[in-house]
Amino acid sequence: MKHSSSLLETRPVIVQTIMTTPTHYPIMVIGGAEDKVNGRSILTAFFESAGGKKAKIAIIPCASQEPSVVGDRYYQIFRDMGAQQIQILDIRAPQECDQSFWLNALNDCTGVFITGGDQQRLCDLIGGSKFVESLKERLHLGELMLAGTSAGAAIMGEKMIAAGSSGESPNRSLVDLTNGLSLIPELLVDQHFHNRNRMARLMSAIAAHPDKLGIGIDEDTCAAFENNFTFKVLGKGTITVIDPGEMLHTNYLESDDQSPLSLHKLTVHVLSQGDRYNYRQRCILAN
Amino acid sequence: MKHSSSLLETRPVIVQTIMTTPTHYPIMVIGGAEDKVNGRSILTAFFESAGGKKAKIAIIPCASQEPSVVGDRYYQIFRDMGAQQIQILDIRAPQECDQSFWLNALNDCTGVFITGGDQQRLCDLIGGSKFVESLKERLHLGELMLAGTSAGAAIMGEKMIAAGSSGESPNRSLVDLTNGLSLIPELLVDQHFHNRNRMARLMSAIAAHPDKLGIGIDEDTCAAFENNFTFKVLGKGTITVIDPGEMLHTNYLESDDQSPLSLHKLTVHVLSQGDRYNYRQRCILAN
Repeated sequence: MKHSSSLLETRPVIVQTIMTTPTHYPIMVIGGAEDKVNGRSILTAFFESAGGKKAKIAIIPCASQEPSVVGDRYYQIFRDMGAQQIQILDIRAPQECDQSFWLNALNDCTGVFITGGDQQRLCDLIGGSKFVESLKERLHLGELMLAGTSAGAAIMGEKMIAAGSSGESPNRSLVDLTNGLSLIPELLVDQHFHNRNRMARLMSAIAAHPDKLGIGIDEDTCAAFENNFTFKVLGKGTITVIDPGEMLHTNYLESDDQSPLSLHKLTVHVLSQGDRYNYRQRCILAN
Repeated sequence: MKHSSSLLETRPVIVQTIMTTPTHYPIMVIGGAEDKVNGRSILTAFFESAGGKKAKIAIIPCASQEPSVVGDRYYQIFRDMGAQQIQILDIRAPQECDQSFWLNALNDCTGVFITGGDQQRLCDLIGGSKFVESLKERLHLGELMLAGTSAGAAIMGEKMIAAGSSGESPNRSLVDLTNGLSLIPELLVDQHFHNRNRMARLMSAIAAHPDKLGIGIDEDTCAAFENNFTFKVLGKGTITVIDPGEMLHTNYLESDDQSPLSLHKLTVHVLSQGDRYNYRQRCILAN
């Protein structure tokens, strides 16, 4: 099976500031509502991964309708942690994206943090821009690491859940699918997962795109990607993997919008703190 | 593998009134909120299965805190359909169960309908009684058929979800497990399934009892059991089967009450209208 390219495919040349940190995750995908007050364990892992006291952090608050408020909140957290430099990349219009001002800011950071909000808004603002291409290139080269929470998590795949509802059986109308930023193309990410009853919508999304791997991340929980196509679970919740690789049948194509969907034979893993999963080989790694 | 006995294990001697109906389901397990007003498709299937115009129906409203109201609602529905006889078995105390009055009523019916309410209340009232033994015996002999909705569905397994919560990652405290009436011992049934965000609690229950098969039934949806350990999906939603038969690992035993649970490698099926599943062989049947 030919896989689409992934930003985690090459061995990154990690910049010196990052090499010295205790753990380094090139990408962290956070299920939203991460602890910002007490242990801050996931945000601390991001901070350390970005270089710790030598971290130069760029916050992208563009998914939010209140980018100043959200940007400032994370600014204060990373300042409290002692980051060397923090910039809020408060891009307000698509045409701003390719301005050298923002591109230079991106070039001068070791870690990018994409906040929550509305993933469609985020993609409308920065999707398809030189800014995103530059972000991917630097990530690919291991020159920076990336974290996204909530909406910032949703945009990771080639396909993205733009919106949806809950409280119904899996059906086509339960989920609006569009294109994400394709940072890890083969994943289809959902967040606030068990917290907001999103199993049915992720299953519906997988029925539509059975070539993808469904990843449902609970709140205050993170898929911390290592190299070699592996992620480790951090945080207080679970990550649900929906693998349709052996699916025998779905009625998706012949269903109308409200009809209940069949998905026959999914492999599902519920992963918690410390579990590690290889999404290319589609297997859990021994601890 | 030795399986525990099941009421669907023997070939039932179906009474004449039932033999003449177009379809006959010995047991119908309904996910709650079945349509009572418009098409009434599930209740009609129950009515037909119990003998149609020759049906003698016993309604057990004991799960409800308002047994008179609930009992009367179904009474009117089955009267409108034209059942030959309808009795409401409004048992109010455990010691009433073995009174000949109720046992005679049970002996004189072709279909039993157990309403919704609180499954623990129902089990406290009738569990372990001669009444339940007589119900099982007549079901076993094919002398009557049985339907249960919501709480009346929850009680089907040897193990039962007595209560639980939602909106959290799978964890031990998410679900209270106790003993059901063991009508189909190997199943662990949950209802109002996607409607009330119950995937995490059913997964938690399965982590506790990995010898059982998890069955999550959506509202207005029914697992209509045929003989030979097979059920067919009726209604407008889905039935989710959680099969831990190939589960590689769970951390259930070493977890404390709030810790997130791991369940590595579940086989999950989402089944919709017309799909048929053999719960003994654990496979979907070709349509």
